[in-house]
Amino acid sequence: MRLRPYLPKYWKMESKPALTVVKIGGNVIDNEQALQNFLEDFAALEGYKILIHGGGKIATKTAESLGITAVFHEGRRITDKPMLDVAVMTYAGLINKNITAKLQSLKNNAMGFTGADGNLILSAKRKDAVVDFGFVGDVLAVNADLMTILIKQNVVPVFSAITHDGYGQLLNTNADTIASTLAVACSSNFNVKLLYCFEKKGVLMDAGNEESVIKNLTFEIYQNLRELKVIHSGMLPKLENCFNALQQGVSQISIGSPDILKKGNSIFTQVTA
Amino acid sequence: MRLRPYLPKYWKMESKPALTVVKIGGNVIDNEQALQNFLEDFAALEGYKILIHGGGKIATKTAESLGITAVFHEGRRITDKPMLDVAVMTYAGLINKNITAKLQSLKNNAMGFTGADGNLILSAKRKDAVVDFGFVGDVLAVNADLMTILIKQNVVPVFSAITHDGYGQLLNTNADTIASTLAVACSSNFNVKLLYCFEKKGVLMDAGNEESVIKNLTFEIYQNLRELKVIHSGMLPKLENCFNALQQGVSQISIGSPDILKKGNSIFTQVTA
Repeated sequence: MRLRPYLPKYWKMESKPALTVVKIGGNVIDNEQALQNFLEDFAALEGYKILIHGGGKIATKTAESLGITAVFHEGRRITDKPMLDVAVMTYAGLINKNITAKLQSLKNNAMGFTGADGNLILSAKRKDAVVDFGFVGDVLAVNADLMTILIKQNVVPVFSAITHDGYGQLLNTNADTIASTLAVACSSNFNVKLLYCFEKKGVLMDAGNEESVIKNLTFEIYQNLRELKVIHSGMLPKLENCFNALQQGVSQISIGSPDILKKGNSIFTQVTA
Repeated sequence: MRLRPYLPKYWKMESKPALTVVKIGGNVIDNEQALQNFLEDFAALEGYKILIHGGGKIATKTAESLGITAVFHEGRRITDKPMLDVAVMTYAGLINKNITAKLQSLKNNAMGFTGADGNLILSAKRKDAVVDFGFVGDVLAVNADLMTILIKQNVVPVFSAITHDGYGQLLNTNADTIASTLAVACSSNFNVKLLYCFEKKGVLMDAGNEESVIKNLTFEIYQNLRELKVIHSGMLPKLENCFNALQQGVSQISIGSPDILKKGNSIFTQVTA
């Protein structure tokens, strides 16, 4: 008889399966060949995964063709009803379903979603005392149980950045926030790795130098670089999302170009708590 | 001790759960109030259910606004690439996601799909020696296993009439055929009732008389009425679909107005094998 050490029950840690959450921005969507390359790399990723995609220029182009004018307030888009309809048509319709069909051809069982589908992402219309941003939503909750069931059926969820308020209203939502919220929600059942793909190779020390990628960005370094205004504007909410997600259970976050998915690529920013 | 009769094992018939498959046409989609009324009735239906919706006039309107001209051949629409994109935007995007969000507000856990999502409906591009119908698909297969898993999670699948060919191409598909094919595919696991809702109260004996609903349409009566040209044109493929579906395991098929969903309504056509 072999000796078996006495282990209290709580020592029997079940290791969670790995889940990769990937967010791609509009620049990939806008370039057919770049999108195809990205989807091939994404399809080749092993294990459970989720894709969140931004919108790209097609919404603006379609709106223009339809004679709908984009309204901005201090550089931020106001989503009025006609613009929301265009966002739903292009993001949740044309882009989402074409990505889904392409991933199917690459043998990934992709399923395209908005937050309304299966109540997967519930949000609330943004209330702002100064500006009415229109039909813009901030995420309230993720239906993590249903997400987990789908993922464990080897379904690859593909999200556009459209959510709903539970009262029948669709809402335009920030794709970066959707990615981090989904990553956090799934981290109770999975060991989650979050990858943000955008137009740069990573977070840069010098915006003018593509090669100045900060390879390891800790919260301390981030705070310093923010004070020095090296990191500013659009990168701030993206990184705040990242540090929040790390605090709330996401294992690993990387920021880089779509090449981040390629094996052996070492040039990207690793965000560390 | 009570006597228990000897029953061979195969006598233990498991009764399948009920599933209602409802198809609504474009006329309901085009009228906001009619759609709301329909969705409330649909949401109130008990048990497992699936909704398939047609397109309505919004695709044509959107195409016109975008300067895309519809091409027809002998009254049948040719789906060229720009028109397919508009169909995907409006059917799979705007209409499908708004219906999904509305059903969510009515406490149905709706999930909007095309055939590409989860490879739920695979189709093949139609080949016709005479006319190239463009990006039109005929259904090849339904992923009934995944459908069953979703339905048993109390998900209410909502399908637009867009499918895919498995090679990355989305295809415009007949919504009536999708409804009957889904109904047949689900009949191995469910006791399926199929309801076709359209602009009439049922199949009419006299097209000019709304009250001349044929209450019980058997295959024999259908054959006679077809020879007498009482039933003709668009109603023929619809009914062929029905009789095929009944032969392939669907329990019950009714055709009528959206009021068919209301309790106590007895004016509709019951199609019987």
